[in-house]
Amino acid sequence: MKSEPPYYAVIFTSRLAVDTDGYDDMAAKMEALAAGQPGFLGIESARDAGGLGITVSYWATRDDIERWRGNIEHRAAQDQGNRRWYAHYDIRIARVERAYEGPPGRG
Amino acid sequence: MKSEPPYYAVIFTSRLAVDTDGYDDMAAKMEALAAGQPGFLGIESARDAGGLGITVSYWATRDDIERWRGNIEHRAAQDQGNRRWYAHYDIRIARVERAYEGPPGRG
Repeated sequence: MKSEPPYYAVIFTSRLAVDTDGYDDMAAKMEALAAGQPGFLGIESARDAGGLGITVSYWATRDDIERWRGNIEHRAAQDQGNRRWYAHYDIRIARVERAYEGPPGRG
Repeated sequence: MKSEPPYYAVIFTSRLAVDTDGYDDMAAKMEALAAGQPGFLGIESARDAGGLGITVSYWATRDDIERWRGNIEHRAAQDQGNRRWYAHYDIRIARVERAYEGPPGRG
């Protein structure tokens, strides 16, 4: 993900509910679907052994994020997430102003 | 982390190197130290079984982030991270413009 700022990030942190049947398949499907949307720049995801998940997706503009949020297949997935899979989540939309990588000399 | 936007996020994604001796202790120490700094709002961290780590810390202003970046103990930790612990990392500084939580009706 080598885009130059400014661009946008969706920071999605979540804790899963008890019923996670079908969740992993849907998460993989949505990640593949997102990758084909206009303005998609990249996605990174980690779920801790303790149960906290953090997924950050990167987009060229806020309009791209709104469009992806309203995608019909994505909306169906959101609905299942709301009803079944997530105990809690936070979504933050943020404008990336600066980006750099490391370690220095090995980046 | 119930702050109202706008505020700032530092999105730190990393892959560890082979030598991780002392890393967990230092990570816990830096998290505790960060929590005492001016402008600190919160921190969330997950490391995947696959090795990708994502830590997002939240701050009131960009100046708070710069001050934390220059903290003398933090700089010593950054130095060890650069020399020993990280195979690669990306740091992004982003302005959180919108935040909401879910699921609806349970948030």
